[in-house]
Amino acid sequence: MKIISFENDRLILLDQRKLPHRVCYVRIKNSEETSDAIKDMVARGAPLIGITSCYGYALGCIEKVFASSADLIKHMDMVKQRLLNSRPTAVNLKWALDKMEEKFNSLKGLTQNEIFKGLVDTADNLKESEIQANEKIGEYGAKLLKKISRKKGKLNILSHCNTGALATGGWGTALGVIRSAFNKGIVKMVYVDETRPRLQGARLTCFELKEAGIPYTLICDNMSGLLMRQKRIDVAIVGADRIASNGDVANKIGTYMVAVLAKYHRIPFYVAAPESTFDFNTPEGDNIEIETRDEEEVLFIGKERICLEETRVENLAFDITPQKFVAAYITEKGVIKKPDELQ
Amino acid sequence: MKIISFENDRLILLDQRKLPHRVCYVRIKNSEETSDAIKDMVARGAPLIGITSCYGYALGCIEKVFASSADLIKHMDMVKQRLLNSRPTAVNLKWALDKMEEKFNSLKGLTQNEIFKGLVDTADNLKESEIQANEKIGEYGAKLLKKISRKKGKLNILSHCNTGALATGGWGTALGVIRSAFNKGIVKMVYVDETRPRLQGARLTCFELKEAGIPYTLICDNMSGLLMRQKRIDVAIVGADRIASNGDVANKIGTYMVAVLAKYHRIPFYVAAPESTFDFNTPEGDNIEIETRDEEEVLFIGKERICLEETRVENLAFDITPQKFVAAYITEKGVIKKPDELQ
Repeated sequence: MKIISFENDRLILLDQRKLPHRVCYVRIKNSEETSDAIKDMVARGAPLIGITSCYGYALGCIEKVFASSADLIKHMDMVKQRLLNSRPTAVNLKWALDKMEEKFNSLKGLTQNEIFKGLVDTADNLKESEIQANEKIGEYGAKLLKKISRKKGKLNILSHCNTGALATGGWGTALGVIRSAFNKGIVKMVYVDETRPRLQGARLTCFELKEAGIPYTLICDNMSGLLMRQKRIDVAIVGADRIASNGDVANKIGTYMVAVLAKYHRIPFYVAAPESTFDFNTPEGDNIEIETRDEEEVLFIGKERICLEETRVENLAFDITPQKFVAAYITEKGVIKKPDELQ
Repeated sequence: MKIISFENDRLILLDQRKLPHRVCYVRIKNSEETSDAIKDMVARGAPLIGITSCYGYALGCIEKVFASSADLIKHMDMVKQRLLNSRPTAVNLKWALDKMEEKFNSLKGLTQNEIFKGLVDTADNLKESEIQANEKIGEYGAKLLKKISRKKGKLNILSHCNTGALATGGWGTALGVIRSAFNKGIVKMVYVDETRPRLQGARLTCFELKEAGIPYTLICDNMSGLLMRQKRIDVAIVGADRIASNGDVANKIGTYMVAVLAKYHRIPFYVAAPESTFDFNTPEGDNIEIETRDEEEVLFIGKERICLEETRVENLAFDITPQKFVAAYITEKGVIKKPDELQ
């Protein structure tokens, strides 16, 4: 199943809001539609929204005819800002758009169409290198889990949100580690928390694990504590939306609760993320903006309203897990204890 | 709104599965229907299922004509067992049925109808005394919170599941404390976690708080950790389904996670429960049977299926919170540190 592709000057995104019940695609022709698709979570997951924004930026370059190079430059500044503003927490968006802007600057003087082609090439390359990074993360992570399984036998792993191919365009980060570990024969069961409010665990992770033939069990978010107490979880692995330079991790809401519980039960808690998720411009977690999303995400599940009208809701989309809860970061450069080791 | 009543030899239960969207009632004529109503959660909440089972027991006495006193006794043994088996975790069921059986034994020799009337009177009295106990719990709890509010100002309180009038037939346990504290002017905001899978927080607690005019905010179960980290929760209060003699607490799934997080953030975690919830025959939490409920409760929200067919689910309905996480138990006899103080 294709997750993201670029054909005939159109960005084609698998509409993840409709999964797992329906497989359908959204065709995108300009940067504004790209920004809306990221906001509405047609595509989601920090690495995938980074890649998506690259194609949106490339489309920005041909969405109008520009009288002068100065006009184009001004427009592309606006396009970059528009895409950056689509979601605030994942740093991959900024990382990817900085690379695209750099490329754009190197192409000045060429025709609009030549610049566009150059930008699409760069987006393609970034996508490929992110997927390759995922595969490396999978390898390093599986090696790490192999060590643990020498003591514990086949592992019971807790997964949060969706960190698979759907979140990244390819193999996956935390779920990529689980895939690679499964291929080594060391995965007994993946406990998938449903991840309210958007249910990425229930909708997307179960779907990916089923496709891959990996044994999984769906639980509600409030059940992992009991499983840990019952010694039924050996390891927890999550992805990240941004990792501050001190190692604090912004990730999908609920991550922090898993981390605190894992610490209390002496269960290793790993964060799997590519280098593009590390933000050395953000000193610590509390500097990261936490997105608050629409109340409707909590109030409705499909067409079912779960409570009275006029219920006040606070829908916090991410939380911050301090570095001290992280046993290690699994990156494409290896398993590290502190972000500094990447530099 | 009537929650439970007994009229013209029928038990009338508010159907809590339909709330908050529809207010409708189930009319029950015998012990089997009572047991089914408890299993299906027409009525839920440990104190309320205790009271419900009393009326079911009384109905058992007139659901057939018995040829002899021995036949009636045999039948009532079966009725008691049937009601006890309807749900395994809440001890209030056993507590209430033991009292009913005691009454039944004292009425032997009377006509079926006389025994029935005696049992209904006892059920009415138990109901009244449980509601009065709730009011006392509210008073003691509000006094306790008043002390905390002297330091902290108006309080932000975390609520889990539903522990109000709907769970108890009257004022409420944990929510009763919140009501009483609100009447004293010391409640700023109640954060209501939705309590998957059955959403008692979203459906029932929001409904009760709205009716009472108490400010509340609905959150998902995985958001309370972040709120605690942001110092936006001053106190957590939960109810209980059974408290072992060492103080370990069985309560709705997710309670343990709240308790561990509260401990880590140095937030007092209180359990509000009547004496009928304390089980001195159970030495510790790990002796308590944890009910596993139907997968469908997780897989469907109303008519919305949240994941693929054939998804394996583990639906644990309760968890155990060890005594060391409990700052105090708020009972109708006062605020206590250990169950022993009740004896």
